[in-house]
Amino acid sequence: MALIIRVGPAREQWWLEHMRSLLPDIDCRLWNDPGDVSEIDIAVVWKPPAGGLKRFPNLRAIVSIGAGIDHVLADPDLPKNVPIIRTTGGDLKIRMREYVVLHVLRLHRRLPEIESAQRRQEWLQIVSPPAYQRRIGLMGLGDLGADCGRALAGLGFDVAGWSRRPKVIEGIKSFVGQDGLGAFLERTEILVCLLPLTPLTEGILNADLFARLPRGASIINAARGGHLVDNHLLSALDAGQIASATLDVFQIEPLPENHPFWAHPRVLVTPHVASLIDPVTGGQAIAANVRRFLAGEPVPDLVDLTQGY
Amino acid sequence: MALIIRVGPAREQWWLEHMRSLLPDIDCRLWNDPGDVSEIDIAVVWKPPAGGLKRFPNLRAIVSIGAGIDHVLADPDLPKNVPIIRTTGGDLKIRMREYVVLHVLRLHRRLPEIESAQRRQEWLQIVSPPAYQRRIGLMGLGDLGADCGRALAGLGFDVAGWSRRPKVIEGIKSFVGQDGLGAFLERTEILVCLLPLTPLTEGILNADLFARLPRGASIINAARGGHLVDNHLLSALDAGQIASATLDVFQIEPLPENHPFWAHPRVLVTPHVASLIDPVTGGQAIAANVRRFLAGEPVPDLVDLTQGY
Repeated sequence: MALIIRVGPAREQWWLEHMRSLLPDIDCRLWNDPGDVSEIDIAVVWKPPAGGLKRFPNLRAIVSIGAGIDHVLADPDLPKNVPIIRTTGGDLKIRMREYVVLHVLRLHRRLPEIESAQRRQEWLQIVSPPAYQRRIGLMGLGDLGADCGRALAGLGFDVAGWSRRPKVIEGIKSFVGQDGLGAFLERTEILVCLLPLTPLTEGILNADLFARLPRGASIINAARGGHLVDNHLLSALDAGQIASATLDVFQIEPLPENHPFWAHPRVLVTPHVASLIDPVTGGQAIAANVRRFLAGEPVPDLVDLTQGY
Repeated sequence: MALIIRVGPAREQWWLEHMRSLLPDIDCRLWNDPGDVSEIDIAVVWKPPAGGLKRFPNLRAIVSIGAGIDHVLADPDLPKNVPIIRTTGGDLKIRMREYVVLHVLRLHRRLPEIESAQRRQEWLQIVSPPAYQRRIGLMGLGDLGADCGRALAGLGFDVAGWSRRPKVIEGIKSFVGQDGLGAFLERTEILVCLLPLTPLTEGILNADLFARLPRGASIINAARGGHLVDNHLLSALDAGQIASATLDVFQIEPLPENHPFWAHPRVLVTPHVASLIDPVTGGQAIAANVRRFLAGEPVPDLVDLTQGY
């Protein structure tokens, strides 16, 4: 039984030892030193290079180090019919909840303006409406989205969610599919994107969508860089249609030097930290999923590829 | 039946009309135009000048426009035995909850460092521990404090509270009185002050308290400026004992020009906006309390002066 690990070079040795300690009965190897490729049963990967996974003829499962699997599906030579397992678990959910609540509150309470007033030594008392008068729109009501929605509703916000299929979540108004998108956007003052990246959602944060939000709305993208059309956002910011953007994910990461987002006064760039996997607990979740999969037990994180995510 | 209103000059006309519309059967008057002072039954005040309230010989109640009454008690000539009614209500609670959750999360997720990295165009991935490994300490578990504690515990934080008397609140570890203060401070990474200002709590955020926190702790003061000894905080920041401070309240407000807090890189100054009363709903809460008081009904916001707040 053998497992191959592919992560960034800085942390690969750490991950190798961590997985060995968690799965002592499995032969764990690094991507660039795979040994006999026919022995590899499981690949644990973050952004595997194109064509890399097809080297393993007897691969039984691919584990994504992350909740999204777009970085795996991006491989045009991805082996067909090999199951893909996501990594979710409590920590990812808590971290995303922290990030989304923090950044919704930061925009709701207009903290950037207060900080800028401090630099001018100005006592600028801003009275924001109370949370129940602030309309938040969550795109994506999967595990993470539903949890964020419940947290925001629990704090008192007026929360709506948009998803492909209807969802019943206490305290969250549900809008569904293309038919529900217009009404959802019209009521949304702070838009949070937590969608999976699929052919249907790629580029969804574009000029057309921005135009359907109320003037002066803000957006938070904690999903994938591929959801956002960068130059459409820059135009909407310039035009005042979008007041500000909080972005954690980008088309190219790290965000390239001199990308206009870095220096834009109304764009907050956070470096893909919204729900960074903590390697300790993330590794534990991965090991538990690998054990379940090999034992033939149900694996809730197994992806249904007919859904595209 | 007559009522006198004392607020800042900028909003007094607005308040006069608002209270008249809410209490049409009461003769509402402004502080500087009281008419026959013997007719005044109720005074609705924010920071009344010393000696001002004793002008009204038949005063039956003093209403504080705010949850704190320290600004009323500061008057050395305050008429004795006139009941004082605070203004609380849902909005104050929601606003304070927003503020405390926002600023705890901002420090927990080290947002100031990420913002500073953006200015350098640096992709600085900070992995904060998940909320359940972050120990928050709330000083003061009254209405507002208990609500903030529940909100933080609901998001997953490890929350302790310190109060004069034991409190049982789900998800919050309770520490009590002088005996419990040391153990409470030792475990606290982010300290939030929501105490009432009384002779016992004045200056409580001082060098001695800072020294009992773990090195590198942060503080958030959303209570009163009188709780904090300003120069003790500046020394503790310089010494690295306190990593950062988020301050909403000050000894003198507005915070005087050139006060060292304004330009300190590790002090966030917010201009007493944590739980600013929204005049519309605040006025409604005041009118409801005045009606209850005049009808002889119980007024939960009536202050028990034997407690000092």
